[in-house]
Amino acid sequence: MLVVADNINIVNNTVRNALEKMDSRIIEDLVRKMASAGADAIDINPGPLSRNAEKKMTFLVETVQGVSDIPILIDTANPEAMEFGLKANKKSAIINGFSLETEKLEKILPLAEKYECDIIGYLLNPNGQVPDDDQGRLNIAIDLYNEFQKVGIENSRLIIDPIIVPVFWQNGKKQSVDVLTVIRTLPDILGFPVKTIAGISNLTTGGSDAEKKINLEKIYIPMLAASGLSMALLNVFHEETIKTVNTVNTLTNGKIFSWEEI
Amino acid sequence: MLVVADNINIVNNTVRNALEKMDSRIIEDLVRKMASAGADAIDINPGPLSRNAEKKMTFLVETVQGVSDIPILIDTANPEAMEFGLKANKKSAIINGFSLETEKLEKILPLAEKYECDIIGYLLNPNGQVPDDDQGRLNIAIDLYNEFQKVGIENSRLIIDPIIVPVFWQNGKKQSVDVLTVIRTLPDILGFPVKTIAGISNLTTGGSDAEKKINLEKIYIPMLAASGLSMALLNVFHEETIKTVNTVNTLTNGKIFSWEEI
Repeated sequence: MLVVADNINIVNNTVRNALEKMDSRIIEDLVRKMASAGADAIDINPGPLSRNAEKKMTFLVETVQGVSDIPILIDTANPEAMEFGLKANKKSAIINGFSLETEKLEKILPLAEKYECDIIGYLLNPNGQVPDDDQGRLNIAIDLYNEFQKVGIENSRLIIDPIIVPVFWQNGKKQSVDVLTVIRTLPDILGFPVKTIAGISNLTTGGSDAEKKINLEKIYIPMLAASGLSMALLNVFHEETIKTVNTVNTLTNGKIFSWEEI
Repeated sequence: MLVVADNINIVNNTVRNALEKMDSRIIEDLVRKMASAGADAIDINPGPLSRNAEKKMTFLVETVQGVSDIPILIDTANPEAMEFGLKANKKSAIINGFSLETEKLEKILPLAEKYECDIIGYLLNPNGQVPDDDQGRLNIAIDLYNEFQKVGIENSRLIIDPIIVPVFWQNGKKQSVDVLTVIRTLPDILGFPVKTIAGISNLTTGGSDAEKKINLEKIYIPMLAASGLSMALLNVFHEETIKTVNTVNTLTNGKIFSWEEI
């Protein structure tokens, strides 16, 4: 299971200040720390970038790639900002991401073909809402894959995000189990060993008890791994969760479960 | 995932002394503590009982069931001792267990039909050795199921133990992953939602670093749960592992993963 660091996010004060001031040293420092903490990839999430999208996205991509060869995920809902990021990319970039929403199908998905990138597809309804259950997610996976195939890129470029929801939601526990079922079932449904990614912190969003949150994450990560999750998006500075990922990878020799191994 | 306490074991000094002296109070006290620690079932493992098998096995079963209604597993390789235990049983008992070894097929397996009990089948070679990999285990599961069917009891009475091996063995990590694959695959191979049990402490047998051992167990238990394990055989007095099982069960509402839910 690979670690995708979610630390370069506009909701983080340090990152927001650095982006406002275009202060590359703050970002560079952060990237070096993320690398030494164990990041296998870095998610760059500057928000929708409604102003100065080209300047800001180019700054972020160039700054991160100026000090690191770690693959990046470009994480924005703004298709123009996404393309500026892909143009600035000089190394390895993943588009994060598309869904069945019309704008994403029309303006984000084609960028995967144009820039020959891997792309993450979210298992969300066309209106952007989270499906009710595992069956809803799997139906969306089929629709998403059909759309993906239309742009003519190879299957290995698709990465599915089943969308973890807060366990504190009314049906949160059932959804957490559904996500495991979806990850385990996707290869059979789509007919190839589809890669997956999931945002771990979503599980405990809205929770107030820090110890309870960390305990839930420490339990859920091995369950995701055993279900076949390829990449975990998480705060790479949370030592206990990183330790959990490392122990899982030690136990499995970093092997990702998939139908190929059965 | 149910907790099966492995604490009544002849290798435990307290248990051995109690059995030698036929001191029911020690066993009764232990059973009460196991119940309050969260045991859903109690494994009774007095060893092969080469002397006084009837007296000792009857004493153990009657003593445990005298203070508790918790289901018991009768865990001995001695077919006569097994039958004495089943004769003494007044509540719910599971035979632990049989394998493809000739003596077990001839003398232990038929007891499941005679006493209308659930029975645990070990995925071991006919010579008693652990198979090399997941494929070996699955082939044995098919042979074991064929033998099981010959005695004419319903499928729901079969519980498979895939045999966890020490992770410190040369191929221990691979075997640990293979066990997960086997648990996940058994329902497809046998064609029904087969129940499973696994001995957690086997994973870290031979390890000397207590913290490392507990961390491995805390990671492996959620992985087993996500793969569909029905019952975990473990030391019910190890607070951290019990806490892990409880958190897993909270997250999944105690639901056991199986193909029925896909």
